[in-house]
Amino acid sequence: MFMHNKRLMYTVRVDAPDARMGNLILEQFGGADGELAAAMRYFTQGLAEGDPGRKDLLLDIATEELSHLEVVGSIVVMLNRGVKGQMAEGIGAAELMANITGGTDSHTTALLYGGGVALTNSAGVPWTAAYVDSRTEPTADMRSNIAAEARAKIIYERLINLCDDPGVKDALGFLMTREIAHQKSFEKALYAMEMNFPPGKLPGEPQFTDKYYNMSQGNGDMRGPWNQGSEWDYVDARGEQAAVDGGDGAASVKLSRSEQALERKILERTMSDPDSDPTTGADLGAGPGAGKTKKTL
Amino acid sequence: MFMHNKRLMYTVRVDAPDARMGNLILEQFGGADGELAAAMRYFTQGLAEGDPGRKDLLLDIATEELSHLEVVGSIVVMLNRGVKGQMAEGIGAAELMANITGGTDSHTTALLYGGGVALTNSAGVPWTAAYVDSRTEPTADMRSNIAAEARAKIIYERLINLCDDPGVKDALGFLMTREIAHQKSFEKALYAMEMNFPPGKLPGEPQFTDKYYNMSQGNGDMRGPWNQGSEWDYVDARGEQAAVDGGDGAASVKLSRSEQALERKILERTMSDPDSDPTTGADLGAGPGAGKTKKTL
Amino acid sequence: MFMHNKRLMYTVRVDAPDARMGNLILEQFGGADGELAAAMRYFTQGLAEGDPGRKDLLLDIATEELSHLEVVGSIVVMLNRGVKGQMAEGIGAAELMANITGGTDSHTTALLYGGGVALTNSAGVPWTAAYVDSRTEPTADMRSNIAAEARAKIIYERLINLCDDPGVKDALGFLMTREIAHQKSFEKALYAMEMNFPPGKLPGEPQFTDKYYNMSQGNGDMRGPWNQGSEWDYVDARGEQAAVDGGDGAASVKLSRSEQALERKILERTMSDPDSDPTTGADLGAGPGAGKTKKTL
Amino acid sequence: MFMHNKRLMYTVRVDAPDARMGNLILEQFGGADGELAAAMRYFTQGLAEGDPGRKDLLLDIATEELSHLEVVGSIVVMLNRGVKGQMAEGIGAAELMANITGGTDSHTTALLYGGGVALTNSAGVPWTAAYVDSRTEPTADMRSNIAAEARAKIIYERLINLCDDPGVKDALGFLMTREIAHQKSFEKALYAMEMNFPPGKLPGEPQFTDKYYNMSQGNGDMRGPWNQGSEWDYVDARGEQAAVDGGDGAASVKLSRSEQALERKILERTMSDPDSDPTTGADLGAGPGAGKTKKTL
Amino acid sequence: MFMHNKRLMYTVRVDAPDARMGNLILEQFGGADGELAAAMRYFTQGLAEGDPGRKDLLLDIATEELSHLEVVGSIVVMLNRGVKGQMAEGIGAAELMANITGGTDSHTTALLYGGGVALTNSAGVPWTAAYVDSRTEPTADMRSNIAAEARAKIIYERLINLCDDPGVKDALGFLMTREIAHQKSFEKALYAMEMNFPPGKLPGEPQFTDKYYNMSQGNGDMRGPWNQGSEWDYVDARGEQAAVDGGDGAASVKLSRSEQALERKILERTMSDPDSDPTTGADLGAGPGAGKTKKTL
Amino acid sequence: MFMHNKRLMYTVRVDAPDARMGNLILEQFGGADGELAAAMRYFTQGLAEGDPGRKDLLLDIATEELSHLEVVGSIVVMLNRGVKGQMAEGIGAAELMANITGGTDSHTTALLYGGGVALTNSAGVPWTAAYVDSRTEPTADMRSNIAAEARAKIIYERLINLCDDPGVKDALGFLMTREIAHQKSFEKALYAMEMNFPPGKLPGEPQFTDKYYNMSQGNGDMRGPWNQGSEWDYVDARGEQAAVDGGDGAASVKLSRSEQALERKILERTMSDPDSDPTTGADLGAGPGAGKTKKTL
Repeated sequence: MFMHNKRLMYTVRVDAPDARMGNLILEQFGGADGELAAAMRYFTQGLAEGDPGRKDLLLDIATEELSHLEVVGSIVVMLNRGVKGQMAEGIGAAELMANITGGTDSHTTALLYGGGVALTNSAGVPWTAAYVDSRTEPTADMRSNIAAEARAKIIYERLINLCDDPGVKDALGFLMTREIAHQKSFEKALYAMEMNFPPGKLPGEPQFTDKYYNMSQGNGDMRGPWNQGSEWDYVDARGEQAAVDGGDGAASVKLSRSEQALERKILERTMSDPDSDPTTGADLGAGPGAGKTKKTL
Repeated sequence: MFMHNKRLMYTVRVDAPDARMGNLILEQFGGADGELAAAMRYFTQGLAEGDPGRKDLLLDIATEELSHLEVVGSIVVMLNRGVKGQMAEGIGAAELMANITGGTDSHTTALLYGGGVALTNSAGVPWTAAYVDSRTEPTADMRSNIAAEARAKIIYERLINLCDDPGVKDALGFLMTREIAHQKSFEKALYAMEMNFPPGKLPGEPQFTDKYYNMSQGNGDMRGPWNQGSEWDYVDARGEQAAVDGGDGAASVKLSRSEQALERKILERTMSDPDSDPTTGADLGAGPGAGKTKKTL
Repeated sequence: MFMHNKRLMYTVRVDAPDARMGNLILEQFGGADGELAAAMRYFTQGLAEGDPGRKDLLLDIATEELSHLEVVGSIVVMLNRGVKGQMAEGIGAAELMANITGGTDSHTTALLYGGGVALTNSAGVPWTAAYVDSRTEPTADMRSNIAAEARAKIIYERLINLCDDPGVKDALGFLMTREIAHQKSFEKALYAMEMNFPPGKLPGEPQFTDKYYNMSQGNGDMRGPWNQGSEWDYVDARGEQAAVDGGDGAASVKLSRSEQALERKILERTMSDPDSDPTTGADLGAGPGAGKTKKTL
Repeated sequence: MFMHNKRLMYTVRVDAPDARMGNLILEQFGGADGELAAAMRYFTQGLAEGDPGRKDLLLDIATEELSHLEVVGSIVVMLNRGVKGQMAEGIGAAELMANITGGTDSHTTALLYGGGVALTNSAGVPWTAAYVDSRTEPTADMRSNIAAEARAKIIYERLINLCDDPGVKDALGFLMTREIAHQKSFEKALYAMEMNFPPGKLPGEPQFTDKYYNMSQGNGDMRGPWNQGSEWDYVDARGEQAAVDGGDGAASVKLSRSEQALERKILERTMSDPDSDPTTGADLGAGPGAGKTKKTL
Repeated sequence: MFMHNKRLMYTVRVDAPDARMGNLILEQFGGADGELAAAMRYFTQGLAEGDPGRKDLLLDIATEELSHLEVVGSIVVMLNRGVKGQMAEGIGAAELMANITGGTDSHTTALLYGGGVALTNSAGVPWTAAYVDSRTEPTADMRSNIAAEARAKIIYERLINLCDDPGVKDALGFLMTREIAHQKSFEKALYAMEMNFPPGKLPGEPQFTDKYYNMSQGNGDMRGPWNQGSEWDYVDARGEQAAVDGGDGAASVKLSRSEQALERKILERTMSDPDSDPTTGADLGAGPGAGKTKKTL
Repeated sequence: MFMHNKRLMYTVRVDAPDARMGNLILEQFGGADGELAAAMRYFTQGLAEGDPGRKDLLLDIATEELSHLEVVGSIVVMLNRGVKGQMAEGIGAAELMANITGGTDSHTTALLYGGGVALTNSAGVPWTAAYVDSRTEPTADMRSNIAAEARAKIIYERLINLCDDPGVKDALGFLMTREIAHQKSFEKALYAMEMNFPPGKLPGEPQFTDKYYNMSQGNGDMRGPWNQGSEWDYVDARGEQAAVDGGDGAASVKLSRSEQALERKILERTMSDPDSDPTTGADLGAGPGAGKTKKTL
């Protein structure tokens, strides 16, 4: 069960309304790496987790992320309090228009969301659960969590770079730091599983585990620990990159007679004649006097 | 520049059409952890990468993932070749209906996509770039790549569990194994950056880096390396979890006089009267003779 | 700040795993009228609300909805516990395929989400913040909340109709009842604002407030309190439904000379010749010997 | 059957092109509370409605909303007529760039939609049927309609606040007023059903209908008609908010032996060791010389 | 202005409810090639069109498509009338579950939309304006319309193949035929513009207009009118496919000194060491005793 | 199999970073008519195509479009290289804020994507496979391809109009020209099928193929080759536009007795009373002293 205490996890002190900054900070409220995405990632994992240690960890951090969501949302609400009143009560069209069009998407926050706080990213795109990559397999999920914390840390860092309101900067610094702490916890939880690589249960096929295929070739080819050394078999020749199973590299399926007959009917109906020289719609459209496109371009 | 060779990277041999299995395998074609998501994740990172080693690595693997996309798509096309002909040419409504309603979303693949191959997941949800979490910061991106490979490995593992066509299983095994190899490469690339933690540039604030807040309490509280030991300061008391900055836990902003005046106008206009005892729409709707909802429920 | 207690708000007792039912109940976890939508609707309103009474109310119910989200998610996790193990460990392809294809979208829950719980609706569509209709204006928001509670009540009612597991039915009954209670609270909060109609601040224009335009005519035209009585002026004549301002019903804008000149250029470049008798691509495609489409159809 | 008359329902007179205002007004064309959403909400309800009175009402208003969609679209087209010509014919890059980047998303309207009119909201987000909350149950749908009209009224009010072109303002005033009239009609239709609360068919469970759970506690707790008086039982104690059914607040399911065996296999494979002290990837990444993260931060 | 007449454009006679078929037909109500997409494509074009002939044509067909939307929706409503009553009133859980899980997504239509009609496709995916490809340039838009009519015709054809209810089949046949007629009209409108190819205003660059790059090579290379004949210059050599402008095929930008300095800082901070041999997280996770991943796989 | 060569298909020379222009060009990277949409359209068709000529053509062009995607992405990366460094390293909040808020959505590219390149359109909307209209029927798909090339040509034309960097303009000119060439190829491929109209297999119903329904009437009615001449039967009378099958224009279905009984139950439960004069929520909300809304407006 969730409970709520009216004190925020971190005090929010904003110097002055700034709808433009408010719009950017939405990235961490309703954006891909924002606090709702974090909370829902860990909450869904926590509900389905069977290991008691990880279950507790996931619910602890899910709850903290909800508390962060509240801090971020409160910052946005404070930054938008100027435009909220202007939009609701009206202050003259020209001044209002100027106030909501500062070069971010604050116009949408003001118009559609009334200068409150919205579950969108900084471009006005509504939050989607497509951001939540929980897969109910801890050797994958813990890695997804580590990566998500790393991304969230970066977005906070960029927001701090953009911010010169000391109170907002202070709160953003707290939130950024907590992502570091959470990453550390998820790292510990990953390595507290003795065998976590490869993820899941099935082993890889030995002949393909250590191959490195040099698929992008030319000036700029590089070697490094990711494709050289005793762990790697570097495959450079184009011929050895195709049909690596030793087959013919074709796709085939066994069809029944009736399936074959149907397929023949499609092929006949839609057969293209390679020897034709048809006049086309483009030819017609290239203008009067032109028999074929060629002549008019 | 991309080039294409008509031989697949892995030969695809399918025993018999099976639209139901084809629909499930779409998860790795147009799904969240599928090959298009992988290719686009590494491709966007590779284009913006400045480090020559990682740039090469990212384009190598992006290209390989496109080749995997082709293998996966070819498997789906083979599995759907039965229903494709039936849908295009017609075989009788009852039989056709039975063939496309096998309990997955193959009905949509058949009806909308004609038994070809579609950029949707196994539920018919169109692929979205919201799946691509590239952030142009390698200490975050490499971790996202590691996690993405881990997730993709798991989905292939589940598909293998669901599959008893030996040729399909064989190709899925190859694809699953390559995700392991890619994960290894991205791990090497991450640790080939000498300092990769914390991600990005800014350090954390020392007083919050090692705190662990026990936000979810009760029967099931657990300790482990993620919240105990010399690296952690475990905060259990609810009072120490709120307003951790030592402030009052409130959100505030300094408003100008005109902003304050506008806000007062909103508050007055929409003030709720706590001492009122209003009749409501629900009261009206609870039926004749009922003054207030209470009486009729 | 949010806190979490490991006891659920309502005890969940499930008789036996049932992935099909689990998939349907996702509607109230990650669906349009589900508990996340409810929690986020009230939470975003609560953060931006200035009236102390409504702010408290909104945060109370937002927190309760999060607790409901946990109850719903726990039901789904219990219902999926059978297929979760089968998918992770493998039990033979044919049996597994049969278990995940029961005629709902449980195949996606199993394959992509591993038999955990996902923020999708019952069709596998990811949750989107487009479901959240908070507008930061209480005379509109309270009505949206009332409507949302009514919708959620209906979905629970339908799930109860579909359910014969007594423990699940019991929990669904509790959740359904709470939507009734919440609707009552939001009704009270709406009518605790003395003037809440028309919503917002601006009055309507008197000449159009009481008009009822009979736009759909024919066998089936009906009168009732929504279009008859002293409050309504019923407009039936088609001529009085167009250009109701008394103008010419055209759209016009004053263009500068240079704008007019550019527009002329477009019109000339793309002018259609009403007197032409062109041969078209369709004519070409209607087959050999056919000068115009007409002849071949 | 729908018919169309070339006269608009309301004459549109625009003073001068203004792509920025055009972009904002898209909110009512392709936005969440816009006219397409309204038309489709009532149209889908009307088609499935069995009650003759409501069916007629819904089709009347659906048709009027389509006529409003045309008025709104015509306003946008007029406002964009300047940039449309400039984009199509070219007027010099610098001037054109300046004209389409006025601080809203008019750049996308100009570039992608050519200065026409697009089914997006003011942030460029494509319209989605996720906005349409029809549920085929009139006691819920009428409430959704009332709420939708209230929201639409508010957005028009905000647009009027932003607008100083008298012709546009005049048309927006008409459209806003009609939302008031429609709300009135839907209110009448709701209360023309004698029993409309609780919505749907099933009654609530008496022991939970009148409870108010004070889930958010602290400085700011308020009482009002929504949680006090004879209709309410106010539950404040945290202990009485958890497991309100009197059970243990846990989630459980009865598993078969084979299901239990599979679950044990997962748990063993992914068990976390609470007593371990693992070195993690974060430790590795914290830089040379650092055994554990702790030391380097 | 739109008006509505209660008679459908085509009479709908359904033999018996069939929720499964109803779900499939949603493809033409709320699907990508459905009637709403068609109506909105032509309506948005018609509003912004300056040529009087095409404007009239677009509004004629937009209005007819709305009338088709009504026919399609009415078919779905009739097909769902069985399950609608069962879902609303309850008929026993087992029977109801059986009735809504027939192997399409009818479970979502029943549960979320109450057996009415929904703006989703046959997989339950909500309609999105991303389907509408109007670009406010008639030489492109007419081609988009031709293509859209062709696609819609195909989906109706597939539905007819799936249908054995004579009344439904009859109505589908009418709707399919009208797509043919509309395609013919749009073809005429395209070719009534004397010069419609290349689309738009700018001519192509002569040296690249007639090149055909054979990018996909190997067993299966084909020649035909699309890449041979006097209109084409076939480029086969890989070397002539890269950097076709004669440059070095690199991407470059001139940076200021300060920009260069910042870039150097990123590169230094995130430089990967190609000569390192790092231990990675995957190495750690490969299990006890394994120094590097290699040894344990 | 795909291979990659590090030389771009076209050399990219950018004069100076320009994040605003970079944002607009995203339209062709991750937008509806961009290169990923093109590549995926042809790739999915190519995989499922049975005709050898079209299969080869589709894979040739799909591969070229991927190479274009790389060129477009490289342009964006170069244009963003200024803001990328500033965002990552920090240059002072005010200057950075000014640099990312130039009136397009470059703020989101900078903040969320770090000044790299993102699969979004120019409004920040993530790419969706809803843009891909492949239907596995070549007489429809070729037309979709023709239309898509026409749209892409137009967007490049508009970008060229907006651009004054000669190197960027040069590359955009190449890309625009290739869309013309591709359109020509797809036109040839369409007409290399001898019978391609009507699309698909089923013929139209003769009585409805040549009808033109004048659905939009009034001042502005036009005749042209799309609705006049020997190929057309122009239907003007409203009465002949409804129920064109000669029936009553109603929708009906045969219900079983039990289905009828259930339906009666719904109707009774939700019957609206046309003779009632109910007080409504709006009446209550219109303020004190007002019995009915009427009086107070």
